[in-house]
Amino acid sequence: MKIFSFFILLLVSSSIFSQNDSIMIRTIYNEALSKGHAYEDLRSLCKDIGARITGSAEAEMAIHWGELKMKEYEFDKVYLQEIEVPHWERGTKEAGWYKGSDGHLHKVHLLALGGSIGTNGTLEGKLIQFNSLDELKATDPILVKDKVVFINQKMDEQQIQTFKAYGGCYPIRGNGAVEASKLGAKAVIIRSLGLPLDHNPHTGSMHYIDSIERIPAAAISTQDAEDLAKFLSNGSASFVMEMDCRHYPNMTSYNVIGELTGSDKSDEIITFGGHLDSWDTGEGAHDDGAGIVHCLEAMRILKTLNYQPQHTLRLVLFMNEENGNMGGKSYAKIVKEKGEKQIAALESDRGGFAPRGFSCDGSDEYITLLESFESKFSSYDLHIFEKGYGGVDISPLKSEYPEIPLFGFVPDSQRYFDFHHAPSDVFENVNKRELELGAAAISSFLYLLDKSL
Amino acid sequence: MKIFSFFILLLVSSSIFSQNDSIMIRTIYNEALSKGHAYEDLRSLCKDIGARITGSAEAEMAIHWGELKMKEYEFDKVYLQEIEVPHWERGTKEAGWYKGSDGHLHKVHLLALGGSIGTNGTLEGKLIQFNSLDELKATDPILVKDKVVFINQKMDEQQIQTFKAYGGCYPIRGNGAVEASKLGAKAVIIRSLGLPLDHNPHTGSMHYIDSIERIPAAAISTQDAEDLAKFLSNGSASFVMEMDCRHYPNMTSYNVIGELTGSDKSDEIITFGGHLDSWDTGEGAHDDGAGIVHCLEAMRILKTLNYQPQHTLRLVLFMNEENGNMGGKSYAKIVKEKGEKQIAALESDRGGFAPRGFSCDGSDEYITLLESFESKFSSYDLHIFEKGYGGVDISPLKSEYPEIPLFGFVPDSQRYFDFHHAPSDVFENVNKRELELGAAAISSFLYLLDKSL
Repeated sequence: MKIFSFFILLLVSSSIFSQNDSIMIRTIYNEALSKGHAYEDLRSLCKDIGARITGSAEAEMAIHWGELKMKEYEFDKVYLQEIEVPHWERGTKEAGWYKGSDGHLHKVHLLALGGSIGTNGTLEGKLIQFNSLDELKATDPILVKDKVVFINQKMDEQQIQTFKAYGGCYPIRGNGAVEASKLGAKAVIIRSLGLPLDHNPHTGSMHYIDSIERIPAAAISTQDAEDLAKFLSNGSASFVMEMDCRHYPNMTSYNVIGELTGSDKSDEIITFGGHLDSWDTGEGAHDDGAGIVHCLEAMRILKTLNYQPQHTLRLVLFMNEENGNMGGKSYAKIVKEKGEKQIAALESDRGGFAPRGFSCDGSDEYITLLESFESKFSSYDLHIFEKGYGGVDISPLKSEYPEIPLFGFVPDSQRYFDFHHAPSDVFENVNKRELELGAAAISSFLYLLDKSL
Repeated sequence: MKIFSFFILLLVSSSIFSQNDSIMIRTIYNEALSKGHAYEDLRSLCKDIGARITGSAEAEMAIHWGELKMKEYEFDKVYLQEIEVPHWERGTKEAGWYKGSDGHLHKVHLLALGGSIGTNGTLEGKLIQFNSLDELKATDPILVKDKVVFINQKMDEQQIQTFKAYGGCYPIRGNGAVEASKLGAKAVIIRSLGLPLDHNPHTGSMHYIDSIERIPAAAISTQDAEDLAKFLSNGSASFVMEMDCRHYPNMTSYNVIGELTGSDKSDEIITFGGHLDSWDTGEGAHDDGAGIVHCLEAMRILKTLNYQPQHTLRLVLFMNEENGNMGGKSYAKIVKEKGEKQIAALESDRGGFAPRGFSCDGSDEYITLLESFESKFSSYDLHIFEKGYGGVDISPLKSEYPEIPLFGFVPDSQRYFDFHHAPSDVFENVNKRELELGAAAISSFLYLLDKSL
């Protein structure tokens, strides 16, 4: 393989582009599929560390893990970038029940939403149900006052693009507490943002605003939401809950950075990565362990094949995407302040499923470039090469460098919302081959991008 | 929905094709995703019946199940087609060990290959390993005589199309026993035809020929194959096995058939389906429970939407695909003898994964027709519309009707050989949404095909 890699390199440097591209991409895929590290790296991140919410010991260990991996893989530079992050903890108490007028209790599978306050002991209130945030907002406060608001909005299963279904429900999680509190509610519970009907509650970020009183917010499983809605259609009920979530002062954390230094254009940087933090349930396997190992593996493969990039390829394992995005925001600010020349960015944060393609948030010229890559991937079952979102971590770069393209890796999305932010987001639910194909696609894409810019 | 369906029907009959197609396809997908029966039908087939090898009580119950489902769904005609099938049973004893020169035993996960004879008590022989069938065939018989041949050929993980990797290994399973016996071996064990390294053995069909002595044949798990190869690299070993498989006389069984009668071209038949039998391990969930419920659901949806086909749509749940294909062969012979006008056929037998498209085994004119369907599915993430295989059940139709096109449903293939013919092919390994999207794609395809022919 070494001799073969050298041969590839010769071919590449001789600029007979098209044929060499196909040989290089085939070589990248072979490495990922036959000698890949992605799956064992993910096992290690999920099992040796586990869930790694910002501010936790696990997040700290994940930083250590990422730095060590990059050194093992002999990237040209490896360093930590200091950032300030929020610190929220779920605490140990977390339970919820609905209680019929006969006093019988029905326990639900509940997870506090990330950023919620606790209940300060047991909280109880009469339930009032809404099917959307708009329905809640249009309601007379007198009906809501001192109640527990239950928002039972279902993700639209008819959306083929599951992220669109997620986007349609996101406001109930992000803004439910504020809107319910405006009307005098004492707490809010939402139907989990998950597609299957099951018992896994899905957490995720929510926010408060200063002028509105903070009330506790939690998600219950989709099956519990169905059962509760049915129960409420037959009579009234109250909700009993306890959560001891807490906010702590901001603390120091790190983005983990590794680079392959560019040859003739080393000052021009292609940033790519995923987020190292996860929610504090499951193992953050798809979200975003998969993105982390995709990108680690993509760069390991290029290094192993002795590929010498023109531009500097910079892998960033961003901290704190889930509850603040301080990794992404700080990174964009720091590199701008340093006067760095960022030329493109790529993110993987949609899970470790079979690759479908790449999207681009950028000008027409970059969409055209992206479309020109499609034929290179025709033997690899990739078919989405179109305008679309980049990713949360890299999005702040757009404010600092409005002209650069942000690319998003697009795997198949059908199973993502089975696991997203739920206890089921564990290593066992990631398929080895699908994960490896993602790493190979990203590595090939970085190679093409580096050559084209 | 009823009024809406009626509206669709009006539009369809008014021949404003293109726009109506997109409305019809959207309506089909909505039905599959919001009111679908595919997943619960698969649960029932897997859990109420389970593995259903030809000749078993389960296969008989599956016939009953299929007929009942079709009647419940009020297809225009529902009937059984009598066929003659082989009858092979694994028996109850099945075990294998490799034994080092020190006498220590190492138990392996073993499954007799379908069609194998038993060992008639305990069989023991010195092991000789080959990495391919060609390597075995080129060996001096003196080295093989009275030994147990171990063929350790790995599926090529670098093949992006996993069915090609499967095809490359198929000869060791199909012909391993014949080739080993020609050289005087007393039994053959093969590395399972599965992609992951795990403990699941994968069974599947093998054959004997009359002039060559029959010897027992079994598969061991990929992990056992790796371990055994390593063991053999350090010294010799023998293999000990017992299997009490038996062949019984041929018996009567049935294809299960349901029809929606065509309007103006009722004598022109579009045959479609999957196979009702499965191997006798796992639950035949992907292979081919998924294909069965895909096709049942595809026709249920067309019926529910009051779609009136031009041609007769005939759903066939074929018996005995796995070990003889007598369902497919008999069907083709019977319909030809009856003088039926078959105009096209479609099969789903590649698992219940996210749809990628359709392939066509047919003349250029049909490939062009298939390609013209691609744009109809652009919002549904389908992108493969190309020349390719139809399916095993429908392939005998080609001999009787050489001019007709055979279409194959093409789902993503990356996870298929994790489960194929293995104990892990169970309901829990099928994703609801992926299954439903397959049913919707097939239903939409049948609609387009009916309108285009």
